[in-house]
Amino acid sequence: MRVLVYGGRGALGGSIVDHFKAKNATVVNVDLHANEKADENIALDLSQDWTAQEAAVLAKLDGHFDGVFCVAGGWAGGNAAADDMVKNADLMWKQSVWSSAIAARIAAKHLKEGGLLQLTGAAPALGGTPGMMGYGMAKAAVQQLTKSLAEDGSGLPKGASVVALLPVTLDTPMNRKWMPKADFGTWTPLAWIAEHLEKWTTDAASRPSNGALLKIVTEGGKTTTTEH
Amino acid sequence: MRVLVYGGRGALGGSIVDHFKAKNATVVNVDLHANEKADENIALDLSQDWTAQEAAVLAKLDGHFDGVFCVAGGWAGGNAAADDMVKNADLMWKQSVWSSAIAARIAAKHLKEGGLLQLTGAAPALGGTPGMMGYGMAKAAVQQLTKSLAEDGSGLPKGASVVALLPVTLDTPMNRKWMPKADFGTWTPLAWIAEHLEKWTTDAASRPSNGALLKIVTEGGKTTTTEH
Repeated sequence: MRVLVYGGRGALGGSIVDHFKAKNATVVNVDLHANEKADENIALDLSQDWTAQEAAVLAKLDGHFDGVFCVAGGWAGGNAAADDMVKNADLMWKQSVWSSAIAARIAAKHLKEGGLLQLTGAAPALGGTPGMMGYGMAKAAVQQLTKSLAEDGSGLPKGASVVALLPVTLDTPMNRKWMPKADFGTWTPLAWIAEHLEKWTTDAASRPSNGALLKIVTEGGKTTTTEH
Repeated sequence: MRVLVYGGRGALGGSIVDHFKAKNATVVNVDLHANEKADENIALDLSQDWTAQEAAVLAKLDGHFDGVFCVAGGWAGGNAAADDMVKNADLMWKQSVWSSAIAARIAAKHLKEGGLLQLTGAAPALGGTPGMMGYGMAKAAVQQLTKSLAEDGSGLPKGASVVALLPVTLDTPMNRKWMPKADFGTWTPLAWIAEHLEKWTTDAASRPSNGALLKIVTEGGKTTTTEH
């Protein structure tokens, strides 16, 4: 098994790298910084524009993957009255949409037939997000891209599936640091994501519907999903 | 009456400028090139990035508007297997999302209480658009921004409304040139849009719901709308 993790140096990405390495998979990490546990690292250059980043990543890849997982992203707020709304929208676009579109290009060229492409949306972006306009726009774009990729003529390999994960809050060290009094039982464990990505990659019948926007809700420590 | 047209040099934008001038409104045009019929022109500089364009436009504006209409945009195709998918997605983002976000910032600062902000989406982006991925992502972002702007806390002035128009095909000279054998009776006349923008601006009770994605369908020369 060979997988690519876009954003494999972050909290969620690192958890996915760990999980797949424990299952003896070969793991390629694409991120600003290397993850020493990955078999191969492709470093992104923030000074490059979107097409240059795409070209740089594609030039370093060969072979095929069972799964391509894009968990890169970030968060920034701002409504229309906020002076940093556009600045933050630009950052959100680069973090979530550049990465997702390049992951889609990687999948078109390097995913195996019947492979799995996973992108990352956000549950709030299924509706309006007045206090975080740039974040909502970027995630809505990723979610619409997911629908596009699932349709005939998308350019993905035959039999491939795509799913966008829409978590509410992930149980990461950073979230525990900044929200120490929150109810952690409502946060989704990173291991839940990593285990399900492995299951869906190896057992196509277990996958969500092709093109699903999979809202992931954790309550009382129990995680459930609904498709949108 | 004073309105701002973002993209007032294009086919639709020019039609809106003409219509509002005929109603004795004061019209400000924001576009790459001047529209000599507008009372004031603010020239966009394509060499600037998103935040610099925003700052340049905001620095040239004062006073308040009854309506802010953003009809800037373009079209480019490409699925995930297309080598120009990312290049085109970048262009679509700049043409549709940069303009819409700056229009939202203009509205937050310069729209009158109870005024109208109009953005431009696309009917196909309500679902997947596999053959035009960048276009779909950009329009989906504009459509989600519309939902955000309609909610409490969006930063728009009190009582303001926002609507996104989702045309299928507009009856423009360029479309007639490139699709000379199409059934023009299924194309929406530019005057329909201009007349309705004036009606909604002057009569708030006639407006679509706040935050509506207004799909505009023309059949047999008759134009109808549905809210999404």
